[in-house]
Amino acid sequence: MGGVVVQNIERADKSVIEALGKCGVATVHEAQGRKGLLASYMRPIYRGTRLAASAVTISSPPGDNWMVHVCIEQCQSGDIMVLAPTSPCEDGYFGDLLATSAQARGVKGLIIDAGVRDVMDLEEMAFPVWSKAIFAAGTVKETVGSVNIPLVCAGELVNPGDVIVADDDGVCVVRREEAEDVLVKAQKREAAEVAKRERLAKGELGLDIYDMRARLAEKGLKYI
Amino acid sequence: MGGVVVQNIERADKSVIEALGKCGVATVHEAQGRKGLLASYMRPIYRGTRLAASAVTISSPPGDNWMVHVCIEQCQSGDIMVLAPTSPCEDGYFGDLLATSAQARGVKGLIIDAGVRDVMDLEEMAFPVWSKAIFAAGTVKETVGSVNIPLVCAGELVNPGDVIVADDDGVCVVRREEAEDVLVKAQKREAAEVAKRERLAKGELGLDIYDMRARLAEKGLKYI
Amino acid sequence: MGGVVVQNIERADKSVIEALGKCGVATVHEAQGRKGLLASYMRPIYRGTRLAASAVTISSPPGDNWMVHVCIEQCQSGDIMVLAPTSPCEDGYFGDLLATSAQARGVKGLIIDAGVRDVMDLEEMAFPVWSKAIFAAGTVKETVGSVNIPLVCAGELVNPGDVIVADDDGVCVVRREEAEDVLVKAQKREAAEVAKRERLAKGELGLDIYDMRARLAEKGLKYI
Amino acid sequence: MGGVVVQNIERADKSVIEALGKCGVATVHEAQGRKGLLASYMRPIYRGTRLAASAVTISSPPGDNWMVHVCIEQCQSGDIMVLAPTSPCEDGYFGDLLATSAQARGVKGLIIDAGVRDVMDLEEMAFPVWSKAIFAAGTVKETVGSVNIPLVCAGELVNPGDVIVADDDGVCVVRREEAEDVLVKAQKREAAEVAKRERLAKGELGLDIYDMRARLAEKGLKYI
Amino acid sequence: MGGVVVQNIERADKSVIEALGKCGVATVHEAQGRKGLLASYMRPIYRGTRLAASAVTISSPPGDNWMVHVCIEQCQSGDIMVLAPTSPCEDGYFGDLLATSAQARGVKGLIIDAGVRDVMDLEEMAFPVWSKAIFAAGTVKETVGSVNIPLVCAGELVNPGDVIVADDDGVCVVRREEAEDVLVKAQKREAAEVAKRERLAKGELGLDIYDMRARLAEKGLKYI
Amino acid sequence: MGGVVVQNIERADKSVIEALGKCGVATVHEAQGRKGLLASYMRPIYRGTRLAASAVTISSPPGDNWMVHVCIEQCQSGDIMVLAPTSPCEDGYFGDLLATSAQARGVKGLIIDAGVRDVMDLEEMAFPVWSKAIFAAGTVKETVGSVNIPLVCAGELVNPGDVIVADDDGVCVVRREEAEDVLVKAQKREAAEVAKRERLAKGELGLDIYDMRARLAEKGLKYI
Repeated sequence: MGGVVVQNIERADKSVIEALGKCGVATVHEAQGRKGLLASYMRPIYRGTRLAASAVTISSPPGDNWMVHVCIEQCQSGDIMVLAPTSPCEDGYFGDLLATSAQARGVKGLIIDAGVRDVMDLEEMAFPVWSKAIFAAGTVKETVGSVNIPLVCAGELVNPGDVIVADDDGVCVVRREEAEDVLVKAQKREAAEVAKRERLAKGELGLDIYDMRARLAEKGLKYI
Repeated sequence: MGGVVVQNIERADKSVIEALGKCGVATVHEAQGRKGLLASYMRPIYRGTRLAASAVTISSPPGDNWMVHVCIEQCQSGDIMVLAPTSPCEDGYFGDLLATSAQARGVKGLIIDAGVRDVMDLEEMAFPVWSKAIFAAGTVKETVGSVNIPLVCAGELVNPGDVIVADDDGVCVVRREEAEDVLVKAQKREAAEVAKRERLAKGELGLDIYDMRARLAEKGLKYI
Repeated sequence: MGGVVVQNIERADKSVIEALGKCGVATVHEAQGRKGLLASYMRPIYRGTRLAASAVTISSPPGDNWMVHVCIEQCQSGDIMVLAPTSPCEDGYFGDLLATSAQARGVKGLIIDAGVRDVMDLEEMAFPVWSKAIFAAGTVKETVGSVNIPLVCAGELVNPGDVIVADDDGVCVVRREEAEDVLVKAQKREAAEVAKRERLAKGELGLDIYDMRARLAEKGLKYI
Repeated sequence: MGGVVVQNIERADKSVIEALGKCGVATVHEAQGRKGLLASYMRPIYRGTRLAASAVTISSPPGDNWMVHVCIEQCQSGDIMVLAPTSPCEDGYFGDLLATSAQARGVKGLIIDAGVRDVMDLEEMAFPVWSKAIFAAGTVKETVGSVNIPLVCAGELVNPGDVIVADDDGVCVVRREEAEDVLVKAQKREAAEVAKRERLAKGELGLDIYDMRARLAEKGLKYI
Repeated sequence: MGGVVVQNIERADKSVIEALGKCGVATVHEAQGRKGLLASYMRPIYRGTRLAASAVTISSPPGDNWMVHVCIEQCQSGDIMVLAPTSPCEDGYFGDLLATSAQARGVKGLIIDAGVRDVMDLEEMAFPVWSKAIFAAGTVKETVGSVNIPLVCAGELVNPGDVIVADDDGVCVVRREEAEDVLVKAQKREAAEVAKRERLAKGELGLDIYDMRARLAEKGLKYI
Repeated sequence: MGGVVVQNIERADKSVIEALGKCGVATVHEAQGRKGLLASYMRPIYRGTRLAASAVTISSPPGDNWMVHVCIEQCQSGDIMVLAPTSPCEDGYFGDLLATSAQARGVKGLIIDAGVRDVMDLEEMAFPVWSKAIFAAGTVKETVGSVNIPLVCAGELVNPGDVIVADDDGVCVVRREEAEDVLVKAQKREAAEVAKRERLAKGELGLDIYDMRARLAEKGLKYI
C-alpha cells in the first residue's frame, strides 16, 4: 500500500489568494454560498493571525509524521500544509524543527486535524497552526502516506492547490477554480457591509434595514 | 408554531447589577448557595472581561438567527442577550454587524449556547461574548422563535430580567428577585475573605484557620 | 474508608528538576522514550509558563476539596500539587484563597484533572494551573481522600516525588528515579537539535539530513 | 445550605399520563410544539420500554446519592424519579437495591443525568432507566440536596408533577398543566398519521401529499 | 442560494453491490487499501444488519428535513440515502413516516450524520439506519438543500452512486468506479482468511504464520 | 526504543478469579474501597457477559497491532488481554482472526482502550470485548511495543496478573495481591445485601433500615 507524491499541482493566482486572506473566514464562507468551513474544533495555537495560502495536502497514518518531511520538499513560498490523519489522532506530528524547515521554504503555516507541539516556539517564530489539539506525543516514521492528493480534513474536502483562508474564526477552503469568483463576491459583500455597519452604528435596526417586520408577522410572531 | 416577543420585562436595580459584576462569578455562585452556573463549555471569546447585566433572552431554531434582530429592538442600555438554540447547534449566529447594532443600543455582551464569528472584530470592538463555539457557519432567517421567555441556556434556567454575571471563570445567573439578597451575601463573603487571605498569605494553614484537624481524624484520616 | 497522608516522600534533586524545566515538555517526553504525557485536555489557564517541580499528590472524591487543605501542609518549596478526583469531575476545587496559601509555602502550581476557578486572580498572582476545566462550581468538605499516594491523573501514573514538567504543550511526568538520566538524554537531544535547526533554517531538507529517500522508495512511495 | 423536601406535589390525571405513554416521545414532542426533549445522551439502559409517569425530582451533589433514599419515601405508585446532579457527574447513584426499594413502592423507573449500575439486574427486574452513563462508581451519603424542587435535567426544566414520557427515542417532559391539552393534540396527530402512512406505503410521495413542489420551486430548487 | 437535484446518476452493478454487502465493512475497507470508513460515531439503531446499496445523497441545512422528501422521489429500489447536514446537527430528520415512504420505493436504509427518531418503529419495519444520534427533535421545511451532489458525511467523501457497505462495524463507502475491483480484492481476502482461520483455530500462532519473529527481533523487541 | 515482553508473570488463584467473576463489577468495586474502575466509555460490544480473568497487558503505538500477535503467545487459558495504546486511538486493532487465535489458547476476552472490529463475528464466537469504540480502521505492524508491563488503561493502572472483572456495568481491576481479600469482602457484601433486598422488597425504607433520619435533620434537611 505505497503512497504517492503528486509533484506538480496548480495554484490559484497569488494576488487573488492575498486578497482572499484580507476578507477573512466568515466573509469568504458567506461569499461562496456558506460552504467550505472546517470543523469548529480546528483552533489557532495563538490568536491574531489572518492569512490565505495554497493548500499542499498530506495524508498520514495515525502517529506517523514521515510524510511531513516529504511534503516540505513539495512546498513553494506562499503554501500552507494541510494534514489529515487516516484515522482520528491527536499526536504531535509537528514542532519547531519542522516549522523551521517549512518556514525556510516560505511555507506560511499548517492546518492539521491532529496535534501540534512546541507551541511556545511556534508562536515566537510566528508560524501559525490551526489544529485539533496541542499535544506533545511523539510520532514514528514507519509507514508511507501521500502528498498532494484530495483528502477530507476536519470534515471538509481539500484538494491540493485549493485556497485556505484562516483566522481566529477558524479555517475555510475555497476551490482553486472558484477563487477568483469568490473573491469578487467577498469584496462585494464587504463593500455592502460598510454602509450597513454605519446605519446600525447609528442605532437603526436590522428589522428596518432588512425590512423584516411584515414577514415576521406573516410567520406568526406575536408581540405581547 | 409562531413565537412570542415579550416587550415589557422587569429588571433588577442598576446599582445592584453593577455591584454584582464587581463580585465576579465564583463569589456570586457561592453567595447564592452554589447554584446558577452555566456549563463549563461556555467560554469567553477573549479574556479579561468581568461584567453583570440584565438578561434579555432569545429562543432560536438551530441555524436560524432571525430572532437576534427581533431581540435587539427589545434591549435597553445595560442588557445582555442570552441565546439558547432549541436543539444543539454551534453555528455562528452572531458577528460584527449584529454586535455593532447591539452596541449602539447599549447592549453589554452576549451569552450564546451556540457559535459566534468575527471574533477578531468583536475583541477590537470590546464586545464580549461567552459561547459554546467559535464557528463561522452562516445562518438563515426562516423560522420564528421567541424573545424574553424563560429558557434553559447551557444547562441553567434563565428568565428575562435575571442578572447575568460573567468573567473568565464562566457565566452565572442570579434570579432578579434574589439579586439584592445575593449581593449582600456576596459582599459579606468578600469581606470575610480579606482577613483569611492575609492569614493564608502569612503561611497559616486552612487546617488551622478552619479548625479541621479534629473532624479529619474523626472521619478516619491517618497520617503515616 | 478513611484515607492516608504520607508525610515523608523523597524528591528528586533540585538542580535536576530545574534543568528539566528548561528542557520543556516535548523534549523531556521524547528523551524518556515517548512516555509520561498527561492527556491533551490538560491545558494551562494562562499561557507562557514553563516549569518543573516535585509532585505532591491528592486523591479526592468528586466535588470535595477537603484534601487540598491537608495537602498544602505537606508541601515544600518547589513542589507542585497533582490532584485526581476518584471519578470524573470538573468542579472548581481550587481558587485564589487556596493559591494564596499554597504560594505562601512555595508551591509552584497545580495540575488538576478537574476544574479550577478565580483564574483572573490566579493569573495576576502568577500561580499557574493546568486543568481539565475552568469552572466555578463550589465543592464540599465532607469525605476524606489521600495525600501522597500513587495515582492516575489524566491518564498517566504519578507517584509522589515524581517530577512534573509543564508548559504550553501540556504536562509530562518523569519518574523520580529516572530524572537524572532523563535530563542527560534531554540535554543531549537539545544539543543535537541546535545543529539540525541551523541546517533546516538554511533550507536543507529533513529528507536529506535524516537520509530518508532510499527507505521511502523501498516502502513503495511513488513520485508522480 | 440544607436542602428541602417538598412533600405534597400535584400530579396529572392517571389516565392522561397512561395515554401520553402510548403516544411516545416523538409524537408528544411534536404535539406540544417541539419542546420538552432532554438531551440525546440520555439513553435507556435496555431497549423496548415505552412509558409515562409523574416526575418526582431529586437534586443531588456530585457523587452523593443520599437524596435518593429520601426521595423514595415521597414516591407514589406511578411516579418516576428524575435526578440531576448539581454539577456534571457520571457516578453510579443507583443500583439494584434502590431499584428494589423503588419498585416496592410502585415507582416505574428513573431518569438520571448521571450514572447507573447493576444494569443486568435492573433489566432482569424490568426497572427501566434512562441515564447519561452506565458506571459502577460508588457514591457517598454526606451532603443533603433537595427533593421535589424544579430543576434542569439534561438541558430541560422539570417540575415535580410534570409528566415524563420515555421510550427508545429518549425522554420528553410535559408540563402538568398542559398534559391534557398535549394529549388531545398528540392523539389528533396520531390519527392524522394513519391516513398518511397508508398513502406513503402505497408509494405516494410526500412531495405530493404535502403539496411541496410549488414552494420548492419558488425557493429556487433546480432539477438537473 | 437555491439547491440542485441531480436526477440521473450512475449506479454500480447490482450483483457487485450485493456481493460487496456479503463481504462486510472491515473486509471491504481493507480490500480497498484501508480507506472509505465513516467516523466511528455512526452507529446502527439496531444490531444485526449487513447490507450494501447505492448512495443517493442529501445535503440539508441543520434542523431542516425538506430535502428528504425531495430525495425519496429520486430513489430507486436498492438505493440507500446518505444525509449530511451543512453544519453539525443531531435533530431527528427522519422517522417512521419517511421510512414508510422510502421503503415503499425500495430504499434499503439511511446513513445520516445527524439524528433519527421513531427507532422502535424503524426496527419493527426492518428499516436500518446508521446515525450520529437517536433524538426526537423535530425539524422544519424552510430552506432548500441539494440532492445527489458529492458531499462529506461523517468525515468521508460520498458521491451519488458510490456503494455504501454497512454492518455492525459501521459504514464504508466504495467509489462506484472501483466497486468491481474492490469486490475482487475483498473476495480474495476472504478466501485467504479461511485457511488462516483454520490454522489459528488449531492453535498456530500469527507470529509463525506471518513469519514475524525475525523482524520483531530486528526492531529491538526483547523477551525477558 | 525497542519494547519488552515479560514472559513469566504471576497470576491469582483460579478459584479466586472465578469467584470474583460471579460477584460482578459493582460489588467488587465497592468491596475494595471504591477503586479500580476503568472509564465509563469502556463498553461491551454485546451485552450479557460477566467474567473475571488474569490480565495480560499490551502497550501498543496508535494504529499498530503488532504486539497483539506477540501477546497471544504469552497467554494461558483463563487470561484476558488488556490493550492500551500509547496515545489516544480508536482504530480496530482486533477482529475475528485474532479472536480465533486467542480463543484457541483459552483467552477469555479483550479489554481495549481503542477500537475493535468484526463485532458480529465476535458475538457469534462468544468472544467478549470491552472497548472504547467499534471501528473497522485497519492497523499496521511496524513499531514494537511491550507485553506484560504495568500500564494505564482507560484511566486505571493495570499490572500483568491483576484480576479483571467485567460485565455490563463496565470493567474493574483488582490487584493480584489483594484478590483473595477483596473476594472475602465482596462475598460478605453480597450476603449482607440479601437481607436488605428482602426488607426493601417488602416496602421498608432505606431511611429506616440505614437509620438516616436523625443525621439528615442534623445536616439541615427540611420537610415542607
